Amino acid sequence: MTLGFDTPVLNRLAHVSEAHGALALGDRLASLDRWVRADLVDLEAELAAIPRGERVVHLAAHHLLDRGGKHLRPLCVALASRFGDGFSPRARSLAVAVELVHSATLLHDDVIDVADRRRGEPAARIVYGNAASIFAGDWLLVVALRRIAAANVDGLVESMLAVIEEMIVAESVQLERRGRVEGAREDYTRIVEGKTCALFRWAMQAGARVAGLTAAEQAALDRYGLHLGFAFQAVDDELDFAEGNGTGKDPLVDLREGKMTYPLVVALERDPSLKERIVGLLEAGASDAELATIAQRVRACGALTATRRLAEDHMQRSLEALSALPAGPARDALETVSLASLQRTS
Amino acid sequence: MTLGFDTPVLNRLAHVSEAHGALALGDRLASLDRWVRADLVDLEAELAAIPRGERVVHLAAHHLLDRGGKHLRPLCVALASRFGDGFSPRARSLAVAVELVHSATLLHDDVIDVADRRRGEPAARIVYGNAASIFAGDWLLVVALRRIAAANVDGLVESMLAVIEEMIVAESVQLERRGRVEGAREDYTRIVEGKTCALFRWAMQAGARVAGLTAAEQAALDRYGLHLGFAFQAVDDELDFAEGNGTGKDPLVDLREGKMTYPLVVALERDPSLKERIVGLLEAGASDAELATIAQRVRACGALTATRRLAEDHMQRSLEALSALPAGPARDALETVSLASLQRTS
Repeated sequence: MTLGFDTPVLNRLAHVSEAHGALALGDRLASLDRWVRADLVDLEAELAAIPRGERVVHLAAHHLLDRGGKHLRPLCVALASRFGDGFSPRARSLAVAVELVHSATLLHDDVIDVADRRRGEPAARIVYGNAASIFAGDWLLVVALRRIAAANVDGLVESMLAVIEEMIVAESVQLERRGRVEGAREDYTRIVEGKTCALFRWAMQAGARVAGLTAAEQAALDRYGLHLGFAFQAVDDELDFAEGNGTGKDPLVDLREGKMTYPLVVALERDPSLKERIVGLLEAGASDAELATIAQRVRACGALTATRRLAEDHMQRSLEALSALPAGPARDALETVSLASLQRTS
Repeated sequence: MTLGFDTPVLNRLAHVSEAHGALALGDRLASLDRWVRADLVDLEAELAAIPRGERVVHLAAHHLLDRGGKHLRPLCVALASRFGDGFSPRARSLAVAVELVHSATLLHDDVIDVADRRRGEPAARIVYGNAASIFAGDWLLVVALRRIAAANVDGLVESMLAVIEEMIVAESVQLERRGRVEGAREDYTRIVEGKTCALFRWAMQAGARVAGLTAAEQAALDRYGLHLGFAFQAVDDELDFAEGNGTGKDPLVDLREGKMTYPLVVALERDPSLKERIVGLLEAGASDAELATIAQRVRACGALTATRRLAEDHMQRSLEALSALPAGPARDALETVSLASLQRTS
């Protein structure tokens, strides 16, 4: 059967889509949009209403928040809650909190990575300075934790603190990796699970708990969050190699910073001659021409295809996790999020 | 009456001391030491038992924690708790938490201030890097908040989050002040209340609440914490101008960084000709010779005496706050802490 898309990946996706809901992705997205639009409007309004203090720390935080972003993690809270009591004001407050924690990590990451751009604009640290950006991240964490405490759902403050600790340890592993190429695959998994998956898992759990789901349903959504997060990160890694991507970050910025993305993990395994160049890059940086050469070699050994396959594999597993949940619009919506996560260009 | 000390300040202190307990400071300190030694031994043991992970973030955190420090904030928790149920395991856990929050702020401050030394050793950021030092601070905050959540005293997680927010806003005011000399006195008060007093207040409240004190007793201890914190900061400011002080920081480091300490606030008011030099310092930094000249001028206009007077005034007010509390060894102990805080050289 020809599914009407002009790339194998889209065909594969449509195939998966068909197997799980008999709708093509475009129709699925339109349906998802209709179903959650009101929730998302409320969410955006609440995010926009985060207090705007007069200090530089507040300005730096809002510089990032006002750029928007995909709001995928709050969407996870919303959709998980829809299996139970729905996107109540408490659920919405938790959704805002997860976005604030995510934003806090971006503010800190951009300082650590000496990044210049974020979401198509100069990073907060460029406009307001590194110190303001660090304090802005701290402030958003505090605002998020206060919201979670106020929502008063048993164990959620503690589990968010555990997530933040996981993220910090993953950042630490990533720091220690800089300049090293050994053990790349093992550490890659560890870093992604800590830096990306942990917060997606929390978003799913928070939505599930606040809406009164059973322990089995919570566990299924937790697994969904893990695999969605991993798929999301793999696509992120792939986008670093896409010319003129829509992320608002510079292309090859991860490569320039010597971050061990999945394409690099694969390329190091497949093209041992690349190792020396990458060690050189990690130790002394690289010119734009040298970066382009490395990127070309990474592409040539099929590392981007392998990365796409990793993303697809995790997407598939996220769909499998959903099978433990009742069929209906909430499950359809999460399937759509998984399918769409592989199509994003930003 | 001659009180036997050879400086006016000590005489004044001994006078205050006499009025409040008829014991000289040395005897008071010996008595305090006997009374809380067992509590402090337990506290040190629990601080030493903070998990030692293998990552650079853990190493950076323990680099600071292992240097010790005065542990004045945990002592506040211990002494407040002694008005009620005593220094229970839960109270001890809160005492550890307040020290971890304090340590977190030092790790972040040293990055922001580009400080080289802390507690007589190279700062964590020098040994492990700025990124590790930032993450180490984040990690200690998380460990502290988890402890506070586990202690399960109503409202303490929320009040610590409010304190951290106050500290961040104060840091932000301080950042914005850099390079400016206007409004120094007003902002100085605001910064000290946020950066220093808020955490002392929390320490007193935490000890009071976990030990079951009345609301009136809690309020009195909160006031005590406010004024003890202010006195402590004023002495800190004074120590920046002391040659060969025992703080383990470089002398004049606050001045070099353009921090608006109280001696500078006073000097700007008393010696307008200093304004130009200080603006120059703030804008372009200063040579060691220029720093020494400014320090000399600050001393010459009596700014250090004024700073000492500010510290004494707050010390006095901390003693007054205690009058609402029952007389006994706990109150004696807090009086001693106030009196001793003016004598410290580190």
